Amino acid sequence: MKQSMTKKSLTDFLEREFPQVSQSFNILDISENNFSMSLKITDEHLRPGGTVSGPTMFLLADVTFYLATLNMIGLKSLTVTTNCSINFLRKPNQKDLISKARILKLGKTLSVGDVLIYSQGINEPVAHASLTYSIPPN
Amino acid sequence: MKQSMTKKSLTDFLEREFPQVSQSFNILDISENNFSMSLKITDEHLRPGGTVSGPTMFLLADVTFYLATLNMIGLKSLTVTTNCSINFLRKPNQKDLISKARILKLGKTLSVGDVLIYSQGINEPVAHASLTYSIPPN
Amino acid sequence: MKQSMTKKSLTDFLEREFPQVSQSFNILDISENNFSMSLKITDEHLRPGGTVSGPTMFLLADVTFYLATLNMIGLKSLTVTTNCSINFLRKPNQKDLISKARILKLGKTLSVGDVLIYSQGINEPVAHASLTYSIPPN
Amino acid sequence: MKQSMTKKSLTDFLEREFPQVSQSFNILDISENNFSMSLKITDEHLRPGGTVSGPTMFLLADVTFYLATLNMIGLKSLTVTTNCSINFLRKPNQKDLISKARILKLGKTLSVGDVLIYSQGINEPVAHASLTYSIPPN
Repeated sequence: MKQSMTKKSLTDFLEREFPQVSQSFNILDISENNFSMSLKITDEHLRPGGTVSGPTMFLLADVTFYLATLNMIGLKSLTVTTNCSINFLRKPNQKDLISKARILKLGKTLSVGDVLIYSQGINEPVAHASLTYSIPPN
Repeated sequence: MKQSMTKKSLTDFLEREFPQVSQSFNILDISENNFSMSLKITDEHLRPGGTVSGPTMFLLADVTFYLATLNMIGLKSLTVTTNCSINFLRKPNQKDLISKARILKLGKTLSVGDVLIYSQGINEPVAHASLTYSIPPN
Repeated sequence: MKQSMTKKSLTDFLEREFPQVSQSFNILDISENNFSMSLKITDEHLRPGGTVSGPTMFLLADVTFYLATLNMIGLKSLTVTTNCSINFLRKPNQKDLISKARILKLGKTLSVGDVLIYSQGINEPVAHASLTYSIPPN
Repeated sequence: MKQSMTKKSLTDFLEREFPQVSQSFNILDISENNFSMSLKITDEHLRPGGTVSGPTMFLLADVTFYLATLNMIGLKSLTVTTNCSINFLRKPNQKDLISKARILKLGKTLSVGDVLIYSQGINEPVAHASLTYSIPPN
């Protein structure tokens, strides 16, 4: 399988299918080996201690791996997460988050890989998520 | 350690610390062996296929285990998630979610356990999350 | 689906398919809601600090959930683990381990659930594993 | 923190602390950014279907991340796994396994990272594990 989408087609898809959140996301790079996004951080994403909440980092990891998978298989919107294990590594700044996805296996029914989450101004990753997505039959 | 909070004190804490989301949550039961909450589902929580999004279920699991831990150790707001592994089991209805937390280990520095998520109208759980929270020193 | 095997048929299966390790395992209870096994601990399972190694606890969780699944679907030996997330909660004694499996979802292609591991002489669980098994088509 | 051990000192440590299994492992590379090991596969590691068992891959991931951590912090043998989430991606050959560890966070009390497992003769990884180790105080 090979990367088949354009940045515009993925962005349009995100706006159509997830209108509630799409305006916060930005697709930075959709090449096969470096699928990367950003999430604009606003007050709704903060939590006590002046940091970004765990569910916000989960959301970015989930959306990033979803689009990284669709980038390879086409716009199958019913592709769904079956498992995610996420480690929170460092306290993020109150700044935008950046994600980088890696697909480790792309089979007929499953896409498995991981996502590193970075916070602007911190060199090391703030979270690491391993995800499995189930791909619906054609 | 034993359960030390009232439902009102936990609800007040949630409203104070997480004003962005607190109005969607309801604490149902805070007994030690059955800590349970509900999350009111609105349009922002939905995703393609007429179901509730994975990040919404993660959010409920995370908030539930956070409050189940604070219910035992007191209102240490800087208690933070270090790991969550979540399995999505069934497609939820577009209805409110119910959570039930179980603490498996409550040490000085870590709280470890799991949360089952139910969707109104479905008998079996729709998601199962295992979580670890790090407890700050006194 | 309902529980369909006998303790003897599962034990015979284990001896036939896993002759290297089967003599260390004992099936205690195979009822649908309380599938339980024990693992005899010997020197090969120990690690520094006078405790049982993590891989030994993983092995017991994996075998227990495998047999708990086969107990429901029949002896499909090619059923394979696709994911396991395990939390190590307490230091076990140098004594036999006991496991208790719970199936949370049994679909046509996946079995998902968790296993608690106990160490003789300790009331609280020493490990908790969430597992997903992939079931081969008929 | 920086890499501080030699291949010989880590190998000696493994033989002293884990005499039951040390002869099956080989340390290939101990540089900071490419900590790599191999595990010699024998009959005891096989399972039905002519493949290597899941617990064998878990064992290699666990030992590799343990030594990758000790390579950075020195020989603290009581460093213990607190969490591992492992995805099994492909059926391994009945050949030796190779592991590659990556440390994502090395703090005073926790080491967090992941390990890719390869099977000789297969280009893509056969398993991916995310691990957290707890480091004892000095």
